[in-house]
Amino acid sequence: MIITSLQNQKIKNLVKLLEKSRERSNQGLFAVEGIQENRMALENKFEAELFFLQQDIFQNQINLPAVETLFVSQQVFQKIAYRSTTEGVIGVYKPKTFSLTDIQNQKNALLVILESVEKPGNLGAVLRSADAAGADAVIVCDARSDFFNPNVIRSSVGTIFTQTIVATSKESIVQFCEEYGIQILPTYLGENSQNLYDCDLTQSTALVFGTESQGLSDFWLQHNHGVKIPMAGQVDSLNVSNAVAVALFEAVRQRSL
Amino acid sequence: MIITSLQNQKIKNLVKLLEKSRERSNQGLFAVEGIQENRMALENKFEAELFFLQQDIFQNQINLPAVETLFVSQQVFQKIAYRSTTEGVIGVYKPKTFSLTDIQNQKNALLVILESVEKPGNLGAVLRSADAAGADAVIVCDARSDFFNPNVIRSSVGTIFTQTIVATSKESIVQFCEEYGIQILPTYLGENSQNLYDCDLTQSTALVFGTESQGLSDFWLQHNHGVKIPMAGQVDSLNVSNAVAVALFEAVRQRSL
Repeated sequence: MIITSLQNQKIKNLVKLLEKSRERSNQGLFAVEGIQENRMALENKFEAELFFLQQDIFQNQINLPAVETLFVSQQVFQKIAYRSTTEGVIGVYKPKTFSLTDIQNQKNALLVILESVEKPGNLGAVLRSADAAGADAVIVCDARSDFFNPNVIRSSVGTIFTQTIVATSKESIVQFCEEYGIQILPTYLGENSQNLYDCDLTQSTALVFGTESQGLSDFWLQHNHGVKIPMAGQVDSLNVSNAVAVALFEAVRQRSL
Repeated sequence: MIITSLQNQKIKNLVKLLEKSRERSNQGLFAVEGIQENRMALENKFEAELFFLQQDIFQNQINLPAVETLFVSQQVFQKIAYRSTTEGVIGVYKPKTFSLTDIQNQKNALLVILESVEKPGNLGAVLRSADAAGADAVIVCDARSDFFNPNVIRSSVGTIFTQTIVATSKESIVQFCEEYGIQILPTYLGENSQNLYDCDLTQSTALVFGTESQGLSDFWLQHNHGVKIPMAGQVDSLNVSNAVAVALFEAVRQRSL
């Protein structure tokens, strides 16, 4: 049987999961579109509940687990999918949540701390860079965007499933870092900030980044001196995901020497 | 007089300039929203034609040149502005276009070459990083997105006005680089690609980046060996603007030694 109506209850519920953070939270489920994204969710042991397939597009490029599978018409799939012409698979999964205790306590921890990133696309790009740089965790304080927002999943190209991503308070993070001897480096273009290239990033390090609109809050500066990425032009900051990438890969470079 | 109707001809035309690339091209005009963005356009000698102001918000935070200025009601401004609650200024300007001959021929050129970036937000973030890193130009081959798209301007936080941005063909760029002795480094995760940190970026350098969906085309690989950003995780590429930032700031680091 192929679902041909957008009024089908399971389709209506899928649309809710795609569109509404509150529904994802209430139902304890979220939706994942695309071959690579579903492959990575499955490989990283996310538990699938249900799949929606458009059969003339989806050609078993990934092995789906033995859960309920519904076939939908091309017309329905086009309405619900962001990338309507490709891939033909949307999975519904249970989220995994992590806490600070899940972060491996190791000699050379590399953590990314975001102060409440505002744009899902930026969070996704940060996760992608964290994956590429081999960071140990991405920690979001006072999270304003839902990690399993479809835009986060899409822009992360599936790295949302590979990363230890923790939502917690600033205070808990500072306590955690102090307990485990992790240096906290707030990125901030202050007079007394140290140049990124002069910082020793080979030791256990947590790099802290402000929000897109407000930058870094004073909370972080009272704890530690800042670190700055040198700015040669007319603006005084980078896009937050670009700043994260530059700092993480400087750590990668130093650790590869 | 305050314009209170969206049917006003000048408002209708402004909406066209904001929404349609073809209108921007046909009219030879584009629109800029926001205090910082308009300040940077003016400081970088873009020629203004007209300003739309919502007077109870705009408090002369920037000195506007003596061109036509129209006042609009709050209601109208909210309808046309992306950031409706802030700033109260939209300017209309003539674009400046650059060609390869505008790129300063200097000992240590640092150029960013993009193969037809697809997302305006990525192009904006690249311009912001290019400004911050002091790059000499951003060159786009076979440009698919219009440089003066409002999303490019916004995500560039005004650096679209500080950068030499050139649209041209791949062939012209290669010829230009060969003529001026600029090494071409296509970023590509190939077997024979050299690690970014082992490349000498202190000499004149053009870093080449592929598109979001297709990566780098073969054209570039036939000319030069690739350079790779090391990838430690499950994905094999960064967001394009993050890749640009990592590579540009490695050049900044090497050049600061």
